[in-house]
Amino acid sequence: MGDKIEIRVRYAEIDKMGYVYYSKYLEYFEMGRTEFIRKRGKNYKEIEAEGFLLPVLEVWTKYMQPARYDDLLTIETEISSMGKASVKFHYFVKNGNGETLAEGMTKHALINKDGKIVPFPEEIHKKLLTP
Amino acid sequence: MGDKIEIRVRYAEIDKMGYVYYSKYLEYFEMGRTEFIRKRGKNYKEIEAEGFLLPVLEVWTKYMQPARYDDLLTIETEISSMGKASVKFHYFVKNGNGETLAEGMTKHALINKDGKIVPFPEEIHKKLLTP
Amino acid sequence: MGDKIEIRVRYAEIDKMGYVYYSKYLEYFEMGRTEFIRKRGKNYKEIEAEGFLLPVLEVWTKYMQPARYDDLLTIETEISSMGKASVKFHYFVKNGNGETLAEGMTKHALINKDGKIVPFPEEIHKKLLTP
Amino acid sequence: MGDKIEIRVRYAEIDKMGYVYYSKYLEYFEMGRTEFIRKRGKNYKEIEAEGFLLPVLEVWTKYMQPARYDDLLTIETEISSMGKASVKFHYFVKNGNGETLAEGMTKHALINKDGKIVPFPEEIHKKLLTP
Repeated sequence: MGDKIEIRVRYAEIDKMGYVYYSKYLEYFEMGRTEFIRKRGKNYKEIEAEGFLLPVLEVWTKYMQPARYDDLLTIETEISSMGKASVKFHYFVKNGNGETLAEGMTKHALINKDGKIVPFPEEIHKKLLTP
Repeated sequence: MGDKIEIRVRYAEIDKMGYVYYSKYLEYFEMGRTEFIRKRGKNYKEIEAEGFLLPVLEVWTKYMQPARYDDLLTIETEISSMGKASVKFHYFVKNGNGETLAEGMTKHALINKDGKIVPFPEEIHKKLLTP
Repeated sequence: MGDKIEIRVRYAEIDKMGYVYYSKYLEYFEMGRTEFIRKRGKNYKEIEAEGFLLPVLEVWTKYMQPARYDDLLTIETEISSMGKASVKFHYFVKNGNGETLAEGMTKHALINKDGKIVPFPEEIHKKLLTP
Repeated sequence: MGDKIEIRVRYAEIDKMGYVYYSKYLEYFEMGRTEFIRKRGKNYKEIEAEGFLLPVLEVWTKYMQPARYDDLLTIETEISSMGKASVKFHYFVKNGNGETLAEGMTKHALINKDGKIVPFPEEIHKKLLTP
């Protein structure tokens, strides 16, 4: 399920235990999100250029198994719910055997250039919900 | 409430919107946690040297207001609950006016060198619960 | 010599070898530079607000000894040379015994909002050269 | 010239100016280096497993043009010189038009588990010099 991207774990992302440092998963989520949006005909750079931002309101992550240096990970991204002015993404980080190493959620609001929360323009709303 | 440390926001931590990037709060939490443990007479380096690790099982963060470059932030850290082999920390990130910009939770297990979850040695358990 | 700041090494900055990852020193240099400029009556945020940027043109770093998790480091920062539109900073990273773990150089140009290299306004030039 | 890898710039890597933060190029170099070594039949993880480390002794980087969010960059990596116990890599970071945005050098020593500098085993030496 969900859109897939692959990520090769960088040395810089590994901590002393030899595992991917826990905050790095949030960068992986962002990469999954970026490609998810891009694939639906609108990259995030364009959304920003139109004067919108999609800041993060909330994050949740559960870590099941560690990821290691040089692992090739798959990030699966999907929209789990979508309101008028907010959207929730869900992510799964899997290893080469298809085992889930971590999963997470990010919740975002759409804000305009004045920093006000605004409803999604119909075009963006529709595109994001395209399977 | 909770132990306090101060953090000066680095340029490297700022994203294109001019705000602290969302994963950086997890580094701030870790710094709060480190000082919390150190203050109770046991630094994390020693815990590792004794053959224990305290990996993160779960993270939750809520972002209320953005933090900006060069802001002087206060991180408040406390233990919100403690089991036999796991512990939850809670964090508040505040600005100079005492406003809460973000709050979060991390849940950890204690594991030994073989990667097995083990109960906290009484000494560590007691020290962590010292106010 | 040079302005001094102290930095506590974060867990997030440590790599698998147990040492501070090599790119992190560039963040330390930036922190030293920021405080160096702030101390001279102009913080970098104000310089940006006036429409100037000080992008990095060149970096050089030499690594002598590793820094480790939880080390308390001293960063010494000084201006090694200053031209009409460019400036070179030099940095020393030292441990608690005063031993130099690394040293480095960054070269910067002053650019205006249009991205053009411009000479330093006299006020900034003077302030930066204040010992 | 040199081995090529592609990197998509992450949001997390962008600073307030909208450009890739200067320390991130060192992570890109490491990724280029990793793939360079892997392609020659020995990945860095195996080199570590055999008890060797290849720490960085020196870094130099020149920044010509900024890289931006979501850019697809090419990192070209080659060995510029190789001694008995040390090796120098050279890197070029190029954009989609083949323009060089940055170039850099890293110098490494080979050390064994006791932290002593040792000559390259003939097998590794030979493999690294394979075009």
